[in-house]
Amino acid sequence: MLRDPHLMALVDLSLAEDLGPGDLTCESIFPDRREVAARFVAREPLVVCGLDMAAAVFGRLDPACRFSRKRREGDRVRAGSVLAAVRGPVQAVLGGERTALNFVRHLSGIATLTRRYAEALKGSACVLLDTRKTLPGYRRIEKAAVRAGGGHNHRMGLFDGVMIKDNHILAAGSISRAVRMARARIPPTVKIEVECSQIRQVRAALSAGADIIMLDNMPPARMRKAVEIVSGRALVEASGRLDLDTVRAAADCGVDFVSVGAITHGARAVDVAMDLVRS
Amino acid sequence: MLRDPHLMALVDLSLAEDLGPGDLTCESIFPDRREVAARFVAREPLVVCGLDMAAAVFGRLDPACRFSRKRREGDRVRAGSVLAAVRGPVQAVLGGERTALNFVRHLSGIATLTRRYAEALKGSACVLLDTRKTLPGYRRIEKAAVRAGGGHNHRMGLFDGVMIKDNHILAAGSISRAVRMARARIPPTVKIEVECSQIRQVRAALSAGADIIMLDNMPPARMRKAVEIVSGRALVEASGRLDLDTVRAAADCGVDFVSVGAITHGARAVDVAMDLVRS
Amino acid sequence: MLRDPHLMALVDLSLAEDLGPGDLTCESIFPDRREVAARFVAREPLVVCGLDMAAAVFGRLDPACRFSRKRREGDRVRAGSVLAAVRGPVQAVLGGERTALNFVRHLSGIATLTRRYAEALKGSACVLLDTRKTLPGYRRIEKAAVRAGGGHNHRMGLFDGVMIKDNHILAAGSISRAVRMARARIPPTVKIEVECSQIRQVRAALSAGADIIMLDNMPPARMRKAVEIVSGRALVEASGRLDLDTVRAAADCGVDFVSVGAITHGARAVDVAMDLVRS
Amino acid sequence: MLRDPHLMALVDLSLAEDLGPGDLTCESIFPDRREVAARFVAREPLVVCGLDMAAAVFGRLDPACRFSRKRREGDRVRAGSVLAAVRGPVQAVLGGERTALNFVRHLSGIATLTRRYAEALKGSACVLLDTRKTLPGYRRIEKAAVRAGGGHNHRMGLFDGVMIKDNHILAAGSISRAVRMARARIPPTVKIEVECSQIRQVRAALSAGADIIMLDNMPPARMRKAVEIVSGRALVEASGRLDLDTVRAAADCGVDFVSVGAITHGARAVDVAMDLVRS
Amino acid sequence: MLRDPHLMALVDLSLAEDLGPGDLTCESIFPDRREVAARFVAREPLVVCGLDMAAAVFGRLDPACRFSRKRREGDRVRAGSVLAAVRGPVQAVLGGERTALNFVRHLSGIATLTRRYAEALKGSACVLLDTRKTLPGYRRIEKAAVRAGGGHNHRMGLFDGVMIKDNHILAAGSISRAVRMARARIPPTVKIEVECSQIRQVRAALSAGADIIMLDNMPPARMRKAVEIVSGRALVEASGRLDLDTVRAAADCGVDFVSVGAITHGARAVDVAMDLVRS
Amino acid sequence: MLRDPHLMALVDLSLAEDLGPGDLTCESIFPDRREVAARFVAREPLVVCGLDMAAAVFGRLDPACRFSRKRREGDRVRAGSVLAAVRGPVQAVLGGERTALNFVRHLSGIATLTRRYAEALKGSACVLLDTRKTLPGYRRIEKAAVRAGGGHNHRMGLFDGVMIKDNHILAAGSISRAVRMARARIPPTVKIEVECSQIRQVRAALSAGADIIMLDNMPPARMRKAVEIVSGRALVEASGRLDLDTVRAAADCGVDFVSVGAITHGARAVDVAMDLVRS
Repeated sequence: MLRDPHLMALVDLSLAEDLGPGDLTCESIFPDRREVAARFVAREPLVVCGLDMAAAVFGRLDPACRFSRKRREGDRVRAGSVLAAVRGPVQAVLGGERTALNFVRHLSGIATLTRRYAEALKGSACVLLDTRKTLPGYRRIEKAAVRAGGGHNHRMGLFDGVMIKDNHILAAGSISRAVRMARARIPPTVKIEVECSQIRQVRAALSAGADIIMLDNMPPARMRKAVEIVSGRALVEASGRLDLDTVRAAADCGVDFVSVGAITHGARAVDVAMDLVRS
Repeated sequence: MLRDPHLMALVDLSLAEDLGPGDLTCESIFPDRREVAARFVAREPLVVCGLDMAAAVFGRLDPACRFSRKRREGDRVRAGSVLAAVRGPVQAVLGGERTALNFVRHLSGIATLTRRYAEALKGSACVLLDTRKTLPGYRRIEKAAVRAGGGHNHRMGLFDGVMIKDNHILAAGSISRAVRMARARIPPTVKIEVECSQIRQVRAALSAGADIIMLDNMPPARMRKAVEIVSGRALVEASGRLDLDTVRAAADCGVDFVSVGAITHGARAVDVAMDLVRS
Repeated sequence: MLRDPHLMALVDLSLAEDLGPGDLTCESIFPDRREVAARFVAREPLVVCGLDMAAAVFGRLDPACRFSRKRREGDRVRAGSVLAAVRGPVQAVLGGERTALNFVRHLSGIATLTRRYAEALKGSACVLLDTRKTLPGYRRIEKAAVRAGGGHNHRMGLFDGVMIKDNHILAAGSISRAVRMARARIPPTVKIEVECSQIRQVRAALSAGADIIMLDNMPPARMRKAVEIVSGRALVEASGRLDLDTVRAAADCGVDFVSVGAITHGARAVDVAMDLVRS
Repeated sequence: MLRDPHLMALVDLSLAEDLGPGDLTCESIFPDRREVAARFVAREPLVVCGLDMAAAVFGRLDPACRFSRKRREGDRVRAGSVLAAVRGPVQAVLGGERTALNFVRHLSGIATLTRRYAEALKGSACVLLDTRKTLPGYRRIEKAAVRAGGGHNHRMGLFDGVMIKDNHILAAGSISRAVRMARARIPPTVKIEVECSQIRQVRAALSAGADIIMLDNMPPARMRKAVEIVSGRALVEASGRLDLDTVRAAADCGVDFVSVGAITHGARAVDVAMDLVRS
Repeated sequence: MLRDPHLMALVDLSLAEDLGPGDLTCESIFPDRREVAARFVAREPLVVCGLDMAAAVFGRLDPACRFSRKRREGDRVRAGSVLAAVRGPVQAVLGGERTALNFVRHLSGIATLTRRYAEALKGSACVLLDTRKTLPGYRRIEKAAVRAGGGHNHRMGLFDGVMIKDNHILAAGSISRAVRMARARIPPTVKIEVECSQIRQVRAALSAGADIIMLDNMPPARMRKAVEIVSGRALVEASGRLDLDTVRAAADCGVDFVSVGAITHGARAVDVAMDLVRS
Repeated sequence: MLRDPHLMALVDLSLAEDLGPGDLTCESIFPDRREVAARFVAREPLVVCGLDMAAAVFGRLDPACRFSRKRREGDRVRAGSVLAAVRGPVQAVLGGERTALNFVRHLSGIATLTRRYAEALKGSACVLLDTRKTLPGYRRIEKAAVRAGGGHNHRMGLFDGVMIKDNHILAAGSISRAVRMARARIPPTVKIEVECSQIRQVRAALSAGADIIMLDNMPPARMRKAVEIVSGRALVEASGRLDLDTVRAAADCGVDFVSVGAITHGARAVDVAMDLVRS
């Protein structure tokens, strides 16, 4: 069950916007609370994600709903596969249908796309990471969808990692000054990453004591040189508009991580439907 | 300014997930609240949307931020165009950057795609509508993005229109019974729409007094026949997995509306960046 | 059970204002959580309403409370009738008594008055509607009380119907312009109503394509003329300070609806008490 | 300005229920934010109350609204008097009209009725008190309306006074035991009141050390006897379905207070309208 | 179970600040939801308090947790005593450990210190009271800890008692004027206390009709004289930086109450730990 | 100005608990909103902290209040020093006094104690850290008080650092397994710390790749040996009931950090008062 108050708030917002003061259709057509059953069915091949959100939607609408998962997060399924079943009062089952589907379709879309990137990296030691290019309010569940698809998570937000970008360097004066100031004030449990687009920045970050060097939009040759320079003294991440055609080449430059914004912001919803079960 | 409490709640959730207890990078690197300026720049051609959300992000982070729009919602712009500018304390400008961009990129993506559909219908009297296939919590802003792109909105949720679908008909017994029950209980200001996939359902809905007939996934010939049968006694809407290749043909069957889920759930984020202005 | 978050918020506000940091009397006098039972009893003839709110009050105070309805919403009962029973820890039963009673007395008062209006219309095809003259925060439950008393609901709020009043017409320039602008922007599921006090306005609204014509404060003769002019091309509603003496005459003018603000804002609380059951 | 978070929550609930996702009429008819002005006008003689709530409604809808009071809470005015003026964007002024009016009409109704009771007691030393028979969620503003009408407030809720009623006595065993237990546990700043319907209860409460004796539904002769017995050793309050015909007689029995539930739960809304000012 | 919404809000704030988007350690190390058991153990002699808050912490994290009290609030225990046990999913038990302990350690610290003061007053008729010098947000639970330690509560806040201090007197003009104004406007259930540091103020408060006289920072001789002057016509409270060395002497001056801020703001956390039970 | 929603929620809880439905004393004694001025004055030597919270208290009560800081967070001041001034309506200044003082006294107490520990470490390269032994809900402001006193912050909560303790090791099977599992799943920006009480655990943690080794309750000789073994391959932290007598010796063992729970949970409130300025 979903217990994260942030996610419950998102579910509540979602139900409020769709139901408002009530579902006119169900409330007028069904005078009693008859029980119905329905199934969530994949209409195309996909990687499953978002069933927790669907369960929360129905649980929040009516605690009398029973939602049962038929597949686990991260399962790869064929078209026609049943992902989950729900049984409950007709008002809740039909009233929650669209909101639940919208979550499952969106999150399974991210998991499905992530899986394709993960496969492109198969056999490589390089780890696939996501970014902060997620839909506002959806950070936690989109990052869970990345994990379901076989990716790993970069920092969750601005609070659990230091990432010094060109804007920060510009405003702070230099890489070494920025790293030194950060190190003196952040908790000892947090690492410092520096974004570099030039080799001289890589050297500066390294000597300032950065824990992670991020190579931003570098051509492969420059990336390989950067990896050589770092030579294990820091972790190295490749980033910058990587897609399915380019991600493997970046990984093969010897970096520890590739981070790909498109696995979240470039995914499309996959097709999942809810079918009422005739009893 | 954004005053809708639903949207402020979404902005607050979004900032909470990204900032948590604070932006480690900015807080450690910038000991003072120096003021900086930045610009939101399109990196590809797009239809502008979401600037209100961006303004709310910065305003919520720090009332000292001044956000100024350079373009209006719905404007078509070229790559390189400046959409907006923001000026304020460095912590707020850099701390809100990603959240603001994520909103603008997503919503402009919907507006941009909607515009392509709207153009496909140019010269037709048929009206382009959206659906309820929107991201949970984003209904209002995605529907605003549809308007920005030249589309029109279908009902906002379950509360401001009656849509009787196959599940409802199945559970209610018949179309005529479902329409009669709804009519007796809903406010007089709300219309009743019935989803039909067969011609005999169109006839049943019409004689039950439906205000709108929705033709679901019908082939063009059947749609034309349905329009002929209805013959102005109700409004007619075509729906069902329409895309840029098929939407015009559906419109040309004589329906009043085409509704297209893909303009919201099939849009990808467009590329917008925030550039710090060197002072 | 009550699951509408809007109503739960109203219940929470209500308990917070009465209990604050605690019920000094019960907490000091009853050191243990002994269980007691009590009954809600009508002290005068009335139409029952508000038991859901009473149940929510006790459920929110202590999930150990069991509230059982003895009558259904809309039942007409005599003085002395038992409406419901509650059993639970003495702190919750006595602590929730006044809040629960205040809801039941107010809402049953509205249902009881509405019933009198509904009876005045007996035999007429004209439908009795409420208005938006409800207590702020109480819209949904007062409208439910109207239904319990045999009335029907007009639009729920500003979001599910268009009502063009004199102020709107004044500001928009003309009825035809206002109707045209509204039609172009509202969802196709929503109807447009125009408030008219003169016959020429009725004609203008009709030719502008209004779905509902509201006759505001018209004398009966004028109303009859308006109905004749409309002649079935739109629905017609009579409104304007109607009371038990005048409502039937208005209905008999041939309008489809009469709307009466007094059924909500003019109702007085009926007398209901909670009696502890000696065990 | 209204700063009580409880009342802001009530205002927010009220706007949410009326506006939901938006005011279809104003949003579709008025494409720009033109400024309009309007006046709140009494349509019958009344005692003014609720202008703070009206101001909060407009302020919450749009900070650009300027609300100016023309009368003070508690002022007695004639039909036609202007109570307040508001100026702001047409969407906010027309969107907040009904909610603001509903507050002012209800609260002025209570103040107006209270004033009649206060006048019935003119010349008496007896103080007019309200009860906890207020609308759930409205306690603070209805008690403010009582003060505006010239009445005084009894305890605000269960937390700032001890009132031992028959149910408490029954469950505690005896008046003396209940008073003793309460005294040992409540803050020294709070008084203990005991509800008595019989003379022997008055004696028991007095010897137990009650601070206030409440005479519940006693006939005048018994009340006078009770006052004589108490003889200044405690305060005395008369209560129990008092109305405008009986309240003075009760006061004249020599009690310190009369408490009248009807001044809140028996008041009807008074007629106040909002007129747009033609500019 | 804890049902006070104020306290649930404090628990929610507490979990949000510690867990944020998740417990990285438990979530990464424990892939399943294995059940574990743990015990809360006193590491030094103490008076037990705060178990309700601990129970709420675990219940809020995961309803599958079962928390069982082994001791009651107010029990005096030796080092090594088991106060409570908790059993549940490892993520919840370890995730809630620190927050639960922090509550129990702080509140038991207050109960333990209060007990020492209560013992210093043993045999005296004088009652030990707390003050409003509590941690913001913790008022209710710190006052409960005072009761657990054998003390009594002064007023809960500014709303359930009138305390006229030097600032109020200064601003109001005189004691008699301040008391008169308060008496005319406060509910009859609430008493008036006046803070006095001089004998002439005691006389003024007494003749103005104060219910309670507070002797602020008076030397013992002056206190005794004040008690003599009051002579039972009001309650008398001694206050002002009393500590374990001075509190008894103050009580022995014949006052009804001594109030001691240090029992809340001067308490230190006692040592309690949570030990996992090896299964 | 305070903009963190977590802290605003704490301020709101705090005002709600003290003011409830209103400040009886001020509201009854002061019929108008006369302006007064007051000063916050140290009554003993202390290190200043908490003025932001005090400012938020008054700002939340009434935006008309003007709060001006006379000292900065972290300033060391003598008894008698003025820390801040506030000017505003008498109701807000006196109504917020106690809540504002309670924050300032508590937080300055932590800053003052931390300063003593920081001085004990003067001249050492070892960094003073806090712990998660903070009052629930107060984490962020107590950690800010530590910084004001010259200490540094350890991780903010469970989300921004991995700390593997004995319970985790027990449940996971071994240190190496726990570290491996954590490394595979946490963001690359977060470090892993392992708590060790034995030398063999230090070796295990080191070879498992821990970033930080925490020496828990080790005697100095063992600590020195541990530091020698680690020899710069990880950071080293000493912890475990350190006090002012023992903290320097621990630091001198060569560890990078000492963490001291007592700087937060062992601090007592310092004496600060608010004096009204006679105008």
